[in-house]
Amino acid sequence: MNVVFFFSQTDQAFVTLATNDSYAKGALVLGQSLRNHNTTRKLVVLLGPHVSDILCCREALSSIFDEVFMVNLMDSGDGAHLALMKRPDLGVTFTKLHCWTLTQYSKCVFMDADTMVLSNVDELFEREELSAAPDPGWPDCFNSGVFVFRPSNETYKQLVIFCAENGSFDGGDQGILNSFFDTWATTDISKHLPFIYNLSSIAIYSYLPAFKKYGHNAKVVHFLGKVKPWNYSYDAQRGEVRGHSIPPDQCQMHPDFLLKWWQLYARSVLPVLQKAYGNASFNSGFVDPSNHVGVVLESVRYFFKHLKSHVIFIQSFKYVFQLWIAFILQEKEQKWLF
Amino acid sequence: MNVVFFFSQTDQAFVTLATNDSYAKGALVLGQSLRNHNTTRKLVVLLGPHVSDILCCREALSSIFDEVFMVNLMDSGDGAHLALMKRPDLGVTFTKLHCWTLTQYSKCVFMDADTMVLSNVDELFEREELSAAPDPGWPDCFNSGVFVFRPSNETYKQLVIFCAENGSFDGGDQGILNSFFDTWATTDISKHLPFIYNLSSIAIYSYLPAFKKYGHNAKVVHFLGKVKPWNYSYDAQRGEVRGHSIPPDQCQMHPDFLLKWWQLYARSVLPVLQKAYGNASFNSGFVDPSNHVGVVLESVRYFFKHLKSHVIFIQSFKYVFQLWIAFILQEKEQKWLF
Repeated sequence: MNVVFFFSQTDQAFVTLATNDSYAKGALVLGQSLRNHNTTRKLVVLLGPHVSDILCCREALSSIFDEVFMVNLMDSGDGAHLALMKRPDLGVTFTKLHCWTLTQYSKCVFMDADTMVLSNVDELFEREELSAAPDPGWPDCFNSGVFVFRPSNETYKQLVIFCAENGSFDGGDQGILNSFFDTWATTDISKHLPFIYNLSSIAIYSYLPAFKKYGHNAKVVHFLGKVKPWNYSYDAQRGEVRGHSIPPDQCQMHPDFLLKWWQLYARSVLPVLQKAYGNASFNSGFVDPSNHVGVVLESVRYFFKHLKSHVIFIQSFKYVFQLWIAFILQEKEQKWLF
Repeated sequence: MNVVFFFSQTDQAFVTLATNDSYAKGALVLGQSLRNHNTTRKLVVLLGPHVSDILCCREALSSIFDEVFMVNLMDSGDGAHLALMKRPDLGVTFTKLHCWTLTQYSKCVFMDADTMVLSNVDELFEREELSAAPDPGWPDCFNSGVFVFRPSNETYKQLVIFCAENGSFDGGDQGILNSFFDTWATTDISKHLPFIYNLSSIAIYSYLPAFKKYGHNAKVVHFLGKVKPWNYSYDAQRGEVRGHSIPPDQCQMHPDFLLKWWQLYARSVLPVLQKAYGNASFNSGFVDPSNHVGVVLESVRYFFKHLKSHVIFIQSFKYVFQLWIAFILQEKEQKWLF
């Protein structure tokens, strides 16, 4: 019999941030993915004041995370409040910077709530502040969805002052952090996390051959972009992810990663939410499998919807084509006039 | 009176590759941009066998470049010929790798013919092989549009063997070079050229705030993507770049860089081409300004074309909307049936 011991390193933590109900779901999936891959570090979540039912949400998060910290800048005793008064546009950004105040930990890895780990990533704690992976949009910037940092009240203070004085070039935390840690691109390769530690879904289709070659090594997937996994719904009976209302050309989600997210949510997060919320309502994101008539009706609706879509397309095409011919004929007449 | 001396460093060179007539135009603009910014290095162009009039093309290139080398793998005396026989799909890729055979130079900077320099970039020669900027698609890969290398027959031989044995994960030279120089992402930050030395047009719109913050420092612009500057046309009278046939959503060209390319082409490259080609025909890419009737006709055509486009759009929209209403009503009836 093999016995595996996991020694917990209590002064290091993975940290995430839940700013609303949807991101709380994301945080739960992220936390559970870290647990499933046997992390030996503490799990911490910062909880913003904009969740609908703070007590239930807190209880759910406490089932997976070791610590849940409420973050409300209005109560903060330091200079952050004053700074925020000057820059109300940067409210959520200030919330994220709060992770530097977790000084009970010597080193942390921040991960956005729209990330999910695919394997154990505890080796990230071997890196120093500020380590992060390149952003695929502008690769001399790091992506602030995953980064290694050392909590420090002094750094926090400097960050807040910097933020208030300079603002953010992109309106978010990534702009501020890249301006503050502005030597990342040029000074120390060990602070460049491999891209597989923050594989943005946007990169999959922009250079598909590279994804095919290196993507199977992915350790952290980051659901960047407007569409998040929780914007879909899930048919647990069939194990299928269902569509959403955002046009496909704006969606850059890899179906395998999306399915993994929902499987984890269905298996481990939904029971946690059901226990915490009890009779209080929350959006499970599930297609209700007990409503058989509903399922049949939905199938019929889908069938006609798609049939009609094709008809609309063909008719529109025909119509546009007729106009085009008319336009060409008219154009010929005009040329004749000159 | 200020006298500026430029000392030429004759054992170092910028190298580019012209595989066809269009890329030859690009190479000429690139070469001229390097000249305009007073490079002290030699300019070398590799010329593939697929240009339509090799003598005229060679003459034009010789006006701007110090050396023009014909590259035809079929004549090569080394193992490349044999390797190519095994992998005919990698023909053009082999052509680019040929730059390693320029052993009369101690160090070179390769630049794709769809790049253009915006300032003097001679400082690139301070870097070592293989230095390159990250690719915005998959930033742990470097983009092979601009790279520093040391010509060496031994490296060339190894590259050709590697290429024949492993192929290319993306079907081009970038895949091969990233597999061959596979420690680029992780070992030496000095081999990471700042992104402004290979600013891909694709990055401009994928993270616009970063472009707005850092883009004004751009030193090399790379017209990545399907649409190249030479796919447009130019109205020299008005100093305006005209559209092309590729849909706008597939085009990621910044208008300022595009205009710069055409201004350089119009001012310095077109006279060179006219001199070299004489009466032989070549596509200047210019709108003919002497054809006044044609210009008026084109304006009228444009007016009606756009007017009609709007009409088509509004009509189509109305039509689709009617179908949509019909579909909703029909859907309601179906629900009634169950």
